[in-house]
Amino acid sequence: MCGPFPRGRWFFRTKPLLRVSGRLAECLLVETMLLSIINFQTLIATKAARLWQACGRLPLMEFGLRRAHGLEAGLYAARASYIGGADSTSNVQAGHLLNIPVAGTHSHAWVMSFANELASFRAFAETFPDQCILLADTYDVLRSGIPNAITVARELKAQGKALLGVRIDSGDLAYLSRQARKMFDEAGFPGVKIVASNDLEEMVIEEIIRNGGRIDMWGVGTNLVTGGGPGGGALGGVYKMVEHNGRPAIKLSDNIEKSTSPGRKQIYRLSVGEAAVYEADVLVLEDEEWNDRHDVLIIDPRNPLRRKRVAHPFQAEPLLAPVMKGGKRLDSSIGLEPARERRRKGIDRLDSSSKRLVNPHVYKVGVSQALWRLKEELLNLQTP
Amino acid sequence: MCGPFPRGRWFFRTKPLLRVSGRLAECLLVETMLLSIINFQTLIATKAARLWQACGRLPLMEFGLRRAHGLEAGLYAARASYIGGADSTSNVQAGHLLNIPVAGTHSHAWVMSFANELASFRAFAETFPDQCILLADTYDVLRSGIPNAITVARELKAQGKALLGVRIDSGDLAYLSRQARKMFDEAGFPGVKIVASNDLEEMVIEEIIRNGGRIDMWGVGTNLVTGGGPGGGALGGVYKMVEHNGRPAIKLSDNIEKSTSPGRKQIYRLSVGEAAVYEADVLVLEDEEWNDRHDVLIIDPRNPLRRKRVAHPFQAEPLLAPVMKGGKRLDSSIGLEPARERRRKGIDRLDSSSKRLVNPHVYKVGVSQALWRLKEELLNLQTP
Repeated sequence: MCGPFPRGRWFFRTKPLLRVSGRLAECLLVETMLLSIINFQTLIATKAARLWQACGRLPLMEFGLRRAHGLEAGLYAARASYIGGADSTSNVQAGHLLNIPVAGTHSHAWVMSFANELASFRAFAETFPDQCILLADTYDVLRSGIPNAITVARELKAQGKALLGVRIDSGDLAYLSRQARKMFDEAGFPGVKIVASNDLEEMVIEEIIRNGGRIDMWGVGTNLVTGGGPGGGALGGVYKMVEHNGRPAIKLSDNIEKSTSPGRKQIYRLSVGEAAVYEADVLVLEDEEWNDRHDVLIIDPRNPLRRKRVAHPFQAEPLLAPVMKGGKRLDSSIGLEPARERRRKGIDRLDSSSKRLVNPHVYKVGVSQALWRLKEELLNLQTP
Repeated sequence: MCGPFPRGRWFFRTKPLLRVSGRLAECLLVETMLLSIINFQTLIATKAARLWQACGRLPLMEFGLRRAHGLEAGLYAARASYIGGADSTSNVQAGHLLNIPVAGTHSHAWVMSFANELASFRAFAETFPDQCILLADTYDVLRSGIPNAITVARELKAQGKALLGVRIDSGDLAYLSRQARKMFDEAGFPGVKIVASNDLEEMVIEEIIRNGGRIDMWGVGTNLVTGGGPGGGALGGVYKMVEHNGRPAIKLSDNIEKSTSPGRKQIYRLSVGEAAVYEADVLVLEDEEWNDRHDVLIIDPRNPLRRKRVAHPFQAEPLLAPVMKGGKRLDSSIGLEPARERRRKGIDRLDSSSKRLVNPHVYKVGVSQALWRLKEELLNLQTP
């Protein structure tokens, strides 16, 4: 079972809670594979959700395969990014295998393989007249890239087509995008989109927006597919024994977050009010008498003096459901599109204070009184 | 060709320089795969080398599969770690497929699946009497783990065997290892090794050593296989066109490190003196008249006012050699063990000021005068 109380960032507090029952050797055999898959993809989906929030939910393109930790990591990063907030990937294999929308622009090498930038833009527009995004920074964005793009926009217009956009991949993105916007508007092309890329992450995106950047689409590579940036690079999910031969088990530690909560559990996500805003998650013992017909008291296992009362009435949604039984996969996968939808709706139901990128209000995850009593009991028993 | 001048940490300055020649489409087809493999494994090998330096070249065990970016990433992280500085991996698949020494200890679940800690230690010692490392922190390191390990050490001794070590995975590792060392020494077991783990990275390791920690072996997982910690998570290697139809090509940028150096190149690593200490790397044009019979002037392309003269005599070792030809792999792979040896010798030849973990002296990588002249010429030509 993954421990539910890591250190972390917003909505890292509730780790993906997974429960595995079986013979000891079977449970241990699947440990590393489960952790490796879940830690990685949860990290990337979370990063995508943060980026999606930072860029104001504008189209977000995943561009990261060349910096992913190998080709398999790149494939699953594209999948997790798409669930978490990206709208497309530049990874053609992910498009093919997982049916994720593929999007991208041409490379600098495209421009450099022509006699000049305008010739390369014209050739690209001729090949992709309906989805033409031109990379504007091979030589000089404002003196070459944008003027040449405007020329191509005019030529496309004469054919009844429209230039979709330009991408700026270096320099001061706030300044360059403002100037580019002005140049396109003055030339009569207010519809041309501006795409930004260049080692972006959520803090940089916020800063560009704060500085008046006029970006319509964001391309994020390295930091998205590696979960990099503030605090990033790995998600520390663990897999701990909570019961053995019907007897609840505990692991103690000087590090309070490394002490486990014993016993077979269910976790409920509690929401309140008409908007059904998420209030807290509570871990309860599977066999305790727990119901949603009374107020509920939640105890923070990392600081047991901190308690929270969720007043009745509230809604309680169980988060654990079987996905395999007797070694066979159950038909319970919801697929990529419904997973995206669930993420979108879930984030909408989080209070905005929990969604701040810096110093967020920590979403509360706690244990029931019965679970806390069991934990204390085993703690007393095992203290040498 | 990978650009040789990224931002970076020690020996990130020289990116792995790779040269690909072929039809444009062929060169572009392999771009992302090459970058993904080389960026990732170079990142991890570099991280391993930093950790190896930080822990005073003591045995370093790679423990990271559960936090790797999927199973394939974990496999190649084990490979790159082993080349870069790790002495073993806990990844059994890497041991099987790549012949890397496998090492590890038992888990907390092992301890928790027995009636008590001592019973679990005894069972493990019975199973692995010759390579028994006991995990000492399931309940309490100093009051339970170490006393029980001493009991088992005595029982092994009575059978003519010896306890190999204990692992401490939480708490104050400097304090706990000092105390554990004292307890083993006083009990007559000065040979029992102490292994440390718990989200370690190079700065933490240095701090533990500075605080008198008595660690004999280090187990590093998350930060090693993800390249995490200060500055980490990704290596930003790029692949840029430097020649097209025999004509040198350049990409300009407001970001000086994103401007490329044109033309087909060779790179020489220059060393001086009897100890053959590495002095600098110099990029030269393949067809320029370059030889090692005169002083050489190196220009920093990111700050062309900075130049360095390497006085004759020096040794010059070419770093680029063919690995594929006509679509066929040449038999030039040196294998894992020689790669480890090359790393060990290479790091010995780096000046210690370049090996500081914080604020290292930056190892110089520059271009020849002929290459600089070509770059300026194209720059003038392409400036709009």
